[in-house]
Amino acid sequence: MSTPYSARITGLREAMAKHGIAACIVPTADPHLSEYLPARWQARQWLSGFDGSAGILIVTAKEAGLWTDSRYFSQAEQQLAGSGIALKKQRAGGAQEHLTWLQQLLHQGDAIAVAGDSVSIATQRQIERQLGGVGAHVRVDLDLPGAVWTDRPALPHAPVFEHPSAYAGASRAEKLEKLRHALRKQHATHHLISSLDDIAWLTNLRGSDVECNPVFLAHLLIETAGASTLFVDRSKLSDNVVAALTGDGIRIANYATLGDALSELKVSDTLLFDPSRVVSEVLKSVALDVKRIEGANPSTAFKAIKSEAELGHIREAMRRDGVALARAFRRLEERLAAGMTQTELDVDTLLRDERSAQPNFVGESFSTIAGYMENGALPHYRATQESHNTLQRHGLLLVDSGGQYLGGTTDITRVLALGPTTPEQRRDATLVMKGMIALSRARFPKGASGPQLDALARAPLWASGMDYGHGTGHGVGYFLNVHEGPQSIRPPISGAPLVPLEPGMITSIEPGLYKPARHGIRHENLAVVVEAEQTEFGEFYAFETLTLCPFDRRALEPSLLSPDERAWLDDYHATVRAALSPLLEDADLAWLEKHCAPL
Amino acid sequence: MSTPYSARITGLREAMAKHGIAACIVPTADPHLSEYLPARWQARQWLSGFDGSAGILIVTAKEAGLWTDSRYFSQAEQQLAGSGIALKKQRAGGAQEHLTWLQQLLHQGDAIAVAGDSVSIATQRQIERQLGGVGAHVRVDLDLPGAVWTDRPALPHAPVFEHPSAYAGASRAEKLEKLRHALRKQHATHHLISSLDDIAWLTNLRGSDVECNPVFLAHLLIETAGASTLFVDRSKLSDNVVAALTGDGIRIANYATLGDALSELKVSDTLLFDPSRVVSEVLKSVALDVKRIEGANPSTAFKAIKSEAELGHIREAMRRDGVALARAFRRLEERLAAGMTQTELDVDTLLRDERSAQPNFVGESFSTIAGYMENGALPHYRATQESHNTLQRHGLLLVDSGGQYLGGTTDITRVLALGPTTPEQRRDATLVMKGMIALSRARFPKGASGPQLDALARAPLWASGMDYGHGTGHGVGYFLNVHEGPQSIRPPISGAPLVPLEPGMITSIEPGLYKPARHGIRHENLAVVVEAEQTEFGEFYAFETLTLCPFDRRALEPSLLSPDERAWLDDYHATVRAALSPLLEDADLAWLEKHCAPL
Repeated sequence: MSTPYSARITGLREAMAKHGIAACIVPTADPHLSEYLPARWQARQWLSGFDGSAGILIVTAKEAGLWTDSRYFSQAEQQLAGSGIALKKQRAGGAQEHLTWLQQLLHQGDAIAVAGDSVSIATQRQIERQLGGVGAHVRVDLDLPGAVWTDRPALPHAPVFEHPSAYAGASRAEKLEKLRHALRKQHATHHLISSLDDIAWLTNLRGSDVECNPVFLAHLLIETAGASTLFVDRSKLSDNVVAALTGDGIRIANYATLGDALSELKVSDTLLFDPSRVVSEVLKSVALDVKRIEGANPSTAFKAIKSEAELGHIREAMRRDGVALARAFRRLEERLAAGMTQTELDVDTLLRDERSAQPNFVGESFSTIAGYMENGALPHYRATQESHNTLQRHGLLLVDSGGQYLGGTTDITRVLALGPTTPEQRRDATLVMKGMIALSRARFPKGASGPQLDALARAPLWASGMDYGHGTGHGVGYFLNVHEGPQSIRPPISGAPLVPLEPGMITSIEPGLYKPARHGIRHENLAVVVEAEQTEFGEFYAFETLTLCPFDRRALEPSLLSPDERAWLDDYHATVRAALSPLLEDADLAWLEKHCAPL
Repeated sequence: MSTPYSARITGLREAMAKHGIAACIVPTADPHLSEYLPARWQARQWLSGFDGSAGILIVTAKEAGLWTDSRYFSQAEQQLAGSGIALKKQRAGGAQEHLTWLQQLLHQGDAIAVAGDSVSIATQRQIERQLGGVGAHVRVDLDLPGAVWTDRPALPHAPVFEHPSAYAGASRAEKLEKLRHALRKQHATHHLISSLDDIAWLTNLRGSDVECNPVFLAHLLIETAGASTLFVDRSKLSDNVVAALTGDGIRIANYATLGDALSELKVSDTLLFDPSRVVSEVLKSVALDVKRIEGANPSTAFKAIKSEAELGHIREAMRRDGVALARAFRRLEERLAAGMTQTELDVDTLLRDERSAQPNFVGESFSTIAGYMENGALPHYRATQESHNTLQRHGLLLVDSGGQYLGGTTDITRVLALGPTTPEQRRDATLVMKGMIALSRARFPKGASGPQLDALARAPLWASGMDYGHGTGHGVGYFLNVHEGPQSIRPPISGAPLVPLEPGMITSIEPGLYKPARHGIRHENLAVVVEAEQTEFGEFYAFETLTLCPFDRRALEPSLLSPDERAWLDDYHATVRAALSPLLEDADLAWLEKHCAPL
């Protein structure tokens, strides 16, 4: 069997041979190191056919391998079939395994190519460190995937708009002044930001250059003592927006001219940048005698902590999202009960329709995952016209979806029982629920990080010899990316920073369980870190759940819950009912009350 | 108020002034980087008066500070009073806070002294990295504490003896061959070991140069392809031991001649050493052109995993230790009931007497901590003739003790109720018990490290706004040091390695709770990691509790335990009863049965 992908790999190998390249690394990255990429930078997908959100392709003259994590094992196996590319399963914490593999194949003097616009400075150094030992060297000046990519998509061109000040929380001027204060403390004269969510948050601008992420392609160069420059396609901005930016001391320059501006930095300047969030190609324009400070973008920490004003809008967005979910799930139930044929794609449409009817809804925060039975076991499944399941009136439907509202970003997963369920399904869903409850009601001391808490969500599954291969929680933006840092709840990783959870941070809580070819479970709420109490032992924090949507009790086995676990669930459902019932009527209200009744 | 210590600090400052030293760092360390030091290297204690096992003293011309962790806050506060030395309380994970403090005080060109025989290469680098930024430099060639220490104790001189082969598990020759295999894989021609427990384990020799740690002062230089050299005071060894070592290819050389031997390494040699377990002074003898590999001592990983033979002996040692504890606790109960006056020191004596009566008992594995009421709130309390509590017939007595047996090392903490207890005391003891149970019965996936599991033991305390400032579990040697690595159960620390828990590793499980001036709780068992089950999600491990001694139920509030927590405790007590009852008679047996009855 042959696919278009095997021919593309052959093309890449020819380009490699021409330039004397022993190995080409194709990461999943764009010049902004975004999690989700504009089509223009999806070279890894174009070459391999694997369209998951994470993966690294490495091609040598004889070998080709694609490394991805356990979320995508099943999907990658299917999509790589026939391409000649071997699936390499990353272990948890095994993010460098591809380099260890490559190290074995290389010889003294070998050259490795990775496009300079899709590799961070930190990653380039890591590659050099690991492969330098065998005497190989890294070239970032050759974009070989770009060279063989004949029908490469153009840059996205969506308009940029203002995040209305009623929702933005703080003004652009306030945010920039706070940032400049941080820069002065670090004695930086300039600060380069390439990460799109930082730029959108700082400028109170939004766009739609990346699917579901309301960001726009830009770089931002801040001068601590003067004007700043936004490198962006001017035609995306209205004159009003340009005038407003100018008023706040932000100049506009062509997206492609960042290098020119950086080359003008002087020996007396000090540039702050985050080596893990700036690509190699950008920084090569900075003269060698310019002082550099490497550190996290201060804005990343600022935007992670939601203000009271933002939290107020988020709570309202959650109510609106909860209404949409209740209406969609009720209609799905009714259609199935009426014997209508419904597919996973219909679930997607139902949710989009209901969310679109809510005030301040802008779009989806990511592509809906509606996976029935075995498709639910693919954590990042996406139904397509060509391939999807028709819903049956039994078993489990996993629905992971979210919305972008002017007042916040939502992300929720529920597991719906479409009819009779098996004891195994209910037991699995209940064990995951135990993890959800344990973490949701945890108190923890100030200073504790997500990796310190991760096991609380897994222990009930571990007790039964089960586990899940993804993290337990990610930060969530404010009308911004559905995944944001710096905090995360996941197992500890050697060498990775431990970011303390702080009041105002929002995190998902989403334990899961995946049984390939059978079914998948994930329960997901968003929660905000809040102050709980001050004792003689210090300050303690807790999570306040923000998401407002009942869990489907027909998928659970209440006898496996302890009395206090049941009490948590009953309390949660009472909260959901109180919050949503004023916004629902008739059949929708009846649905809510049925699903929110005590267990 | 003035103390001998303020005069000693003055003496140190005079020596510093003479040598142009701006700051002197006095760590708690010897040339083997042992946790517990021979008196000869207790300069920090001699200078400051603080006799805890961990602490760093820094003296400048005007300031003097002592950094220690929360185990020792109360004790250090008392012992430093009047010395002019400020207590600096280290936060959890704040092991480098003293350097941050020092950085603020230093100027360009300042010299900092730290004795080269009490600082590891890794620590020296860390100091240089942190203080180099301000333009200060580090001198390790000046031992200023040693220079002002007039009555410095001599080197210890205890005899070295063979660990009988019936107990040693594997022969010296087998262990050395396994080590050489690891060295060959790393292409090392030589390997330097300074850590005393590694040397004792590899050579199947024991000594008593360090209180309660059956080790002897030595360095070991292994030649991958030839004989090895043990640098040790020859007069400590019998002719028989020397002959046996010679037979296994181990030469004896004078302890002080390690430098000479290292200076003979050639350019064609490759030396493996662990920069965190070798002091600066030792390595300066190695010529600069000798190749170096920095890595953990392979023996540290070997000895952490106990063999089935070793575990068999350990289980027997646990039975013997349990008999001694039962007899001692029973006698204490009787004496109190009879109205006899008993102090914390009597508890120490009772335990030592009963352990001494057990077969294969060699000595204590650490100084007994018997802390009644407020003294129990000092995690590392030690009663003295000058200062100790008399036991009353109410409240809580914390007893942390352990024995060295030819067949293993024990370490156990129990909290005894000496009569009526308050609801707060019982609640505290029960919440700590919940943590003990949660971790003891946890299953966890292969690859999980101690820091990943730590929160399971703390969550029940966190839920009530409480916590403890020490780790939850440490490795334990086999008739060796009561604390050993590489594994540990503690909150994750940025940059610290994550060592997976592996079958055969022994760890303590010891959550606690300390209310200064009131009471302290700690429940401690030793447990071994065992294989639990293999599922479609991979391999899962569990802990098997090794310690055999009932918990005092009079200190607990059973109504706060869930049914499955009570079941765990009942199961544990049934196990203890079954294991110990054949070895106890009459009143001792009756005591055991009473304390092991179901709750």
